[in-house]
Amino acid sequence: MDFLEYIENRSNENLEELKEFLRIPSVSTKSEHKADIERAARWVAERLREAGFANAEIVPTKMHPLVLADSLEAPSGPTILFYGHYDVQPADPLEFWTSPAFEPSVREGKLYARGTADDKGQVHIHLKALEALKKSKGKLPLNIKIIIEGEEEVGSVSLWDFVARNKDRLKADALVVSDTSMLARGVPSVTYGLRGLNYYQMEVTGPSQDLHSGTFGGAVPNPITILAEAIAKLHDKNFRVTVPGFYDAVAVPSAKERKAINSLPWKESDFRKTVGARGLCGERNFTTIERIWCRPTLELNGIWGGYTEEGSKTVIPSKAFAKISTRLVPHQDPEKIAKRLEQCLRKLLPKTVDFRFEVLSTGKPWVAPFTHPIFKMAIQALEKGFGKKAVFIREGGSIPFVTQMYDTFKVPCVLIGFGLPDENAHAPDEHILLENYFAGIKSMAIFYSSLAQI
Amino acid sequence: MDFLEYIENRSNENLEELKEFLRIPSVSTKSEHKADIERAARWVAERLREAGFANAEIVPTKMHPLVLADSLEAPSGPTILFYGHYDVQPADPLEFWTSPAFEPSVREGKLYARGTADDKGQVHIHLKALEALKKSKGKLPLNIKIIIEGEEEVGSVSLWDFVARNKDRLKADALVVSDTSMLARGVPSVTYGLRGLNYYQMEVTGPSQDLHSGTFGGAVPNPITILAEAIAKLHDKNFRVTVPGFYDAVAVPSAKERKAINSLPWKESDFRKTVGARGLCGERNFTTIERIWCRPTLELNGIWGGYTEEGSKTVIPSKAFAKISTRLVPHQDPEKIAKRLEQCLRKLLPKTVDFRFEVLSTGKPWVAPFTHPIFKMAIQALEKGFGKKAVFIREGGSIPFVTQMYDTFKVPCVLIGFGLPDENAHAPDEHILLENYFAGIKSMAIFYSSLAQI
Repeated sequence: MDFLEYIENRSNENLEELKEFLRIPSVSTKSEHKADIERAARWVAERLREAGFANAEIVPTKMHPLVLADSLEAPSGPTILFYGHYDVQPADPLEFWTSPAFEPSVREGKLYARGTADDKGQVHIHLKALEALKKSKGKLPLNIKIIIEGEEEVGSVSLWDFVARNKDRLKADALVVSDTSMLARGVPSVTYGLRGLNYYQMEVTGPSQDLHSGTFGGAVPNPITILAEAIAKLHDKNFRVTVPGFYDAVAVPSAKERKAINSLPWKESDFRKTVGARGLCGERNFTTIERIWCRPTLELNGIWGGYTEEGSKTVIPSKAFAKISTRLVPHQDPEKIAKRLEQCLRKLLPKTVDFRFEVLSTGKPWVAPFTHPIFKMAIQALEKGFGKKAVFIREGGSIPFVTQMYDTFKVPCVLIGFGLPDENAHAPDEHILLENYFAGIKSMAIFYSSLAQI
Repeated sequence: MDFLEYIENRSNENLEELKEFLRIPSVSTKSEHKADIERAARWVAERLREAGFANAEIVPTKMHPLVLADSLEAPSGPTILFYGHYDVQPADPLEFWTSPAFEPSVREGKLYARGTADDKGQVHIHLKALEALKKSKGKLPLNIKIIIEGEEEVGSVSLWDFVARNKDRLKADALVVSDTSMLARGVPSVTYGLRGLNYYQMEVTGPSQDLHSGTFGGAVPNPITILAEAIAKLHDKNFRVTVPGFYDAVAVPSAKERKAINSLPWKESDFRKTVGARGLCGERNFTTIERIWCRPTLELNGIWGGYTEEGSKTVIPSKAFAKISTRLVPHQDPEKIAKRLEQCLRKLLPKTVDFRFEVLSTGKPWVAPFTHPIFKMAIQALEKGFGKKAVFIREGGSIPFVTQMYDTFKVPCVLIGFGLPDENAHAPDEHILLENYFAGIKSMAIFYSSLAQI
């Protein structure tokens, strides 16, 4: 039987199986989900075994387990390393989900659940494509190594550690990852650039305990006000980050690349609609697409302090907190940027408060040429699978492992995304378009099948 | 039997009864505590009946009930209106309480629980002083009207409504309130000035839903950053509020008053120790005591938005929120100040975001001369009850009812506080010094007893 026919016949089964995967709340950032994380790892290993990867194994780490498998039955064929992650972002705020985050639900051709787009749905596309090839052809026409981690959303520390100690085991001719987005609906895409990501938490302490804002107000350092004043100084009026040295190493894209990027079939009006704000904003002299793909940012991801419930409480709190992230582009150094931000904040804060700064994770940016023949095969496979023209794009998000692999093995990294930018990857009502899920399985089966010829 | 002896004999019973009162979590700002609020009102009415106020009654309102009682058996004596409140602030953050907020606990001469100082402990002082007079003398030597409300911590709306419709019923020669603090331990005090209080909540909306900070970061309005930037512009570097017109009506205290205030037995070092911050700060050209008593403020009481839990989540939230309060001094108009703050914030915010502003409550400041003979009686009673010199002070907190009564009846308002500034009135580990609770009952019995002579 032809593998495409095999895929076609199994579409209902595949979808039901994906739903099973999505029901496991494998939230990596919260310790209360430790058991779910482990359940998700076991689920992936079992599906790999069913797909014909008899040696699928769970590798414990200091944090969340890795799932590994390989199939090395094509002595003359290339070796591909496929990477994905089974962990997901927290589902909060829960009240904004139309259907519960961990109860998959199909509405208007879309599958809703935490992890549909990022990254369980995309991992499942590859599992099902490889299974179809294995089951319909008897064995794979290429060698493949699979590594699925559980810490992507929290900095991939264990993975990095594993890679450093297992270079031979992971060595491959190319890396394939599906954890990105397509440029737009009907535009299958291969990504050649990602931003790096540093994540920080800061804590400002004024009084040693909460105080009555009547009895003390006007004479004591209010940590909320002081935190806000520091945050406010991190951008200038042209939306440039004011941290000294922040832009020192930033590579500006060439005129040719800027032209290519700005000519892509990408509509600012669609972006605007997805965002849904009264207006857009960003760094002067750059287009929206340049701002999200090619420019570094500093964004506030969370803030809290004092009384945050119903009604009023006249308190001056002891502490206020913020979560901050910086997205980085070539050739910013994550460690240097983290130090510079900390120094900058220390200088901005008055001597009346205490300050604690924590770097939760760091991650380098990645941009690479797409000259290797594998890129052409990826584009062709996507065009066959989707029946649409495919394009090369960059992306504003971060996949630390890609950088790590690229730096470690100096091999081409092929990033093929099946999500869409408006699929709420880290937000309530995350979903994946079912047409992309199904065309994805076909495209990837075509892709892996064609790689035998490299 | 002498009433002081009666009080002495009942001290254990009185303390146990107060603990019973403190066990009722009568938090007025949270709807979940509605039943507790009603239980607290019933408890107060029952204790009044036991104290000899047979006509004690519960008056339902649109929000939380009032408790009323009177004793009018002294045709030639003066009539005093005693005011207090049985509602309390929320206990959050719960994790910072040494013993649970609603399980009273005595440690080193202090009674710990939410409401000990503000205001259940102080209300109880008066109930027990009046009971002692009634029980030991048979009847009271003065006429007294009692009103205990349940909305002091949320703006006293129902009380104001009741006062407007029941002026004759509440008419008195003077108002007595114990909801303030003593200047310091061993310094019994009568307060002649309070700041007013406006409380606001603001909401800034950027994107219509939470967005991935990689895919969207750098090109969309981040409501946390924008909220912080607006807050940062509300003060200048000399800690003056920048809201246009904020200081227009502010009365600066006379040189004489400033001198009196700054000569009081109040130690900045004690204040500093209570605050426990690295340093103090506040409006230029004013002393700390002037800043908290005589100057208006704008304080942030709460802030929240985005991801606020363990670890990291790379989100640009749809919304960010803040709770803000302004303390007001003569002759600032609360309604005008609320409008000016809203206008100022609207101007500060960019057009890329939506803005919602809510005034949760408003309250006028109050400062009055202390020339009526009742003030001298209060000072003498405190000096007898405490065996210490008593002083006249102002206070940074707010008691809306005092202003309302003063404006409505134009009678002297005698504010006698038995709390201390470091007793964490609106914070974890709220407490009252037992020596002040016991000396308070004696002082107030002496005070009420002496008023027959006015």
